Amino acid sequence: MPNALSATEAARKIREGKLTSVDLVKACLKRIEETDGQLHAWAYLNPELALAQAAELDQIRLNGRPLGSLHGVPVGLKDIIDTKEMPTEYGTAIYQGRQPDADAGIVERLREAGAVIMGKTATTEFAFVHPVATRNPHNVDHTPGGSSSGSAAAVAAFHVPLAIGTQTNGSVIRPASFCGTYGFKPTRGVIPRRGLLQTSNSLDQVGVFARTLEDAALLTDAIGFYDPSDAKSYARARPKAVEGCATEAPVDPNFVYLDMPYHDLMASDTIAGFDEIMELLGCQVERIDASPNLVDLIAVQHVIHEYEIIHHLDTVFTEHWDALSTSLQPVLERARKISEAQYQDALAVMQSAETFFQEFFHDYDAVLAPSAAGEAPKFSDGGTGNPIFSTIWTLAGLPCLTIPLMVSGNGLPVGVQLIGSAQEDDRLFRTANWMLKKLENA
Amino acid sequence: MPNALSATEAARKIREGKLTSVDLVKACLKRIEETDGQLHAWAYLNPELALAQAAELDQIRLNGRPLGSLHGVPVGLKDIIDTKEMPTEYGTAIYQGRQPDADAGIVERLREAGAVIMGKTATTEFAFVHPVATRNPHNVDHTPGGSSSGSAAAVAAFHVPLAIGTQTNGSVIRPASFCGTYGFKPTRGVIPRRGLLQTSNSLDQVGVFARTLEDAALLTDAIGFYDPSDAKSYARARPKAVEGCATEAPVDPNFVYLDMPYHDLMASDTIAGFDEIMELLGCQVERIDASPNLVDLIAVQHVIHEYEIIHHLDTVFTEHWDALSTSLQPVLERARKISEAQYQDALAVMQSAETFFQEFFHDYDAVLAPSAAGEAPKFSDGGTGNPIFSTIWTLAGLPCLTIPLMVSGNGLPVGVQLIGSAQEDDRLFRTANWMLKKLENA
Repeated sequence: MPNALSATEAARKIREGKLTSVDLVKACLKRIEETDGQLHAWAYLNPELALAQAAELDQIRLNGRPLGSLHGVPVGLKDIIDTKEMPTEYGTAIYQGRQPDADAGIVERLREAGAVIMGKTATTEFAFVHPVATRNPHNVDHTPGGSSSGSAAAVAAFHVPLAIGTQTNGSVIRPASFCGTYGFKPTRGVIPRRGLLQTSNSLDQVGVFARTLEDAALLTDAIGFYDPSDAKSYARARPKAVEGCATEAPVDPNFVYLDMPYHDLMASDTIAGFDEIMELLGCQVERIDASPNLVDLIAVQHVIHEYEIIHHLDTVFTEHWDALSTSLQPVLERARKISEAQYQDALAVMQSAETFFQEFFHDYDAVLAPSAAGEAPKFSDGGTGNPIFSTIWTLAGLPCLTIPLMVSGNGLPVGVQLIGSAQEDDRLFRTANWMLKKLENA
Repeated sequence: MPNALSATEAARKIREGKLTSVDLVKACLKRIEETDGQLHAWAYLNPELALAQAAELDQIRLNGRPLGSLHGVPVGLKDIIDTKEMPTEYGTAIYQGRQPDADAGIVERLREAGAVIMGKTATTEFAFVHPVATRNPHNVDHTPGGSSSGSAAAVAAFHVPLAIGTQTNGSVIRPASFCGTYGFKPTRGVIPRRGLLQTSNSLDQVGVFARTLEDAALLTDAIGFYDPSDAKSYARARPKAVEGCATEAPVDPNFVYLDMPYHDLMASDTIAGFDEIMELLGCQVERIDASPNLVDLIAVQHVIHEYEIIHHLDTVFTEHWDALSTSLQPVLERARKISEAQYQDALAVMQSAETFFQEFFHDYDAVLAPSAAGEAPKFSDGGTGNPIFSTIWTLAGLPCLTIPLMVSGNGLPVGVQLIGSAQEDDRLFRTANWMLKKLENA
């Protein structure tokens, strides 16, 4: 079925006239219809609108017009990304029926690339702690992770080959790990956030979900650009991820594994799987103890995230307090107590972490790290899993990639994470590609 | 000297470490210093600012960061394109010292591509009829054409390898023809106009100046994108001009030459040169009489252009009437008398012209046409030359390319124009490349 194709393959077939966008979108819609009653990956889906886009794109091809890199390929969008033809509700009843009057900047780029805007994927409330109804496609008794729950589930369930999410702490890497997809969060500033719910101007970062490494690169290249209306967006060329993916590493890359105190949280099967991968990579991996300074960064992330979400949204929270979940309320109450001085200190530490990692990657191509503590927790546990395996890297704004390499004792996927040097996302893709080949031939 | 390099060559040398952006910009600045006292191509130039950008770009390369397609290459901008670090004065004392607080959309793309924003090039008053002080680099007794006078002169004089202009009637093609550069105005809607002076929302179109065909394609690709804040910008993939330029034509292209009544204006040496080119292309060119309907389009352009400039700017004109040139005043007085009904009729005719040309290009790859009546008129004549050889094509929104192929009896350059099918700008570059090779080998 065409819905099982990678985005790269589907786009090629469409370009060559061997597949229509309408047939691809129909196959995706059929798959969604069959499975989303259980999975709840979608917050908004309008099959007629998706098919109308596909039909128009097929006609553009027949007319011999230029085709973009995603021509005819459906993409799911986390429901905190504004779309002018679909509501955007932020995972909360407070914004039920909210209809933006403009597309987010990244949606403009998707349209230019010829993507079909398939629909909006389920997100946790305000992209934060409270779970949404979405289930893990590998076992519906488990969570898909959060906050980009629907984007991860939709890609894993073959609803769409590509989806977009966001990560303020671990909201791309963790759900991708739990759902067995690739997940990639580029360097801070590569993908601009105009038209997205702002929960933390310092930390919010856009990321992508895909079923192949090349697809993750393809989507990243399509939506990365300079947009001065985003204060973190920078006015320079973006790393070329697809090119990085297709480039041979000039020498075997060096990896580093940092022993972190929070690795105590890892499940025994995940530790065993991870050790096996370390062994296969052999002398390419250096194992070192993390400095205490590094571990302190975790608290810093919380201060910035919580202080800023209050700063950005407290008017809404106050006005609609009773409509907030009982998971979010205590977090916000704690957040309101963070002082300006604590926050400024935290920002200064974040800055120094960025500087530290500039030097750090002179010696290594990538940090090799767990993507999560292990398999997805049970849905009935009431959470979306612990984001701590992403916290430091998100804070430092580094490119993070999770690769679905392991399987838990219960048959659930578990990812392996690679973290690269800032603004060298292309090099990270090159390194990942080398690693995949190395493990394949091991 | 590096200022004589094409942009494509300069960018490659910079990428390969064989040239620094600082050395390139220094060479350009030296050339400007030597010649601009006579030419007056620049409305604003700040050597320190240009060199600071170049130094930063050189550092980015040394740091191993990703490089854009124009990394380190200086570009001149017509002074109706907003720049946040330089004034933008629209060629009139009314806006002397006007400092925009944001870059135009195309300037954002130039920065992302790594270009050095060299400075602002001289434009006629409000990009309309009244000449500016700029002279033709081939002979300072002649006009460089208008309204993108400085952009054409700066590229022709080896001040910069690339510059951007705009065309509402013939303001890219004509100055490029007079100054002996390539000039390219893409399909309406390819390059968005956010942050540019609006003189006619229906007709204003951005174009580029370069000394090679490939360079014109390179700059076009860097600044073409979908921007919904421009009503004429469309949400689809842009034609890939560089790729078109590098593609072999699958079969020999067909050209058509339309005999237009205004061809009576052509100088005898230009007619002779043009006939020679027609002969060299031989059976690839079909010669047909233009239908009277086509010729009527010229009046339609004037109605739309003049009605809209009043609609957009009459408050300014009224407030500063005495500061307007005596060339502009009578045009505006005439323009104010155009009725809404006349304007609506003209828009309907423009629409039908667009439809007509969709069919027309099923039979032809390009229209072959003069770019101007002949060599640049004398500066002392007080005008910038007749734009009529561009009028119909600009109105229809078709991609137009002028190629510096002829020389007048006085040794001045004269261009040959190719006009292509809408949104097939890549095909037009392919056709142009074929024609250049054909004439080279003839």
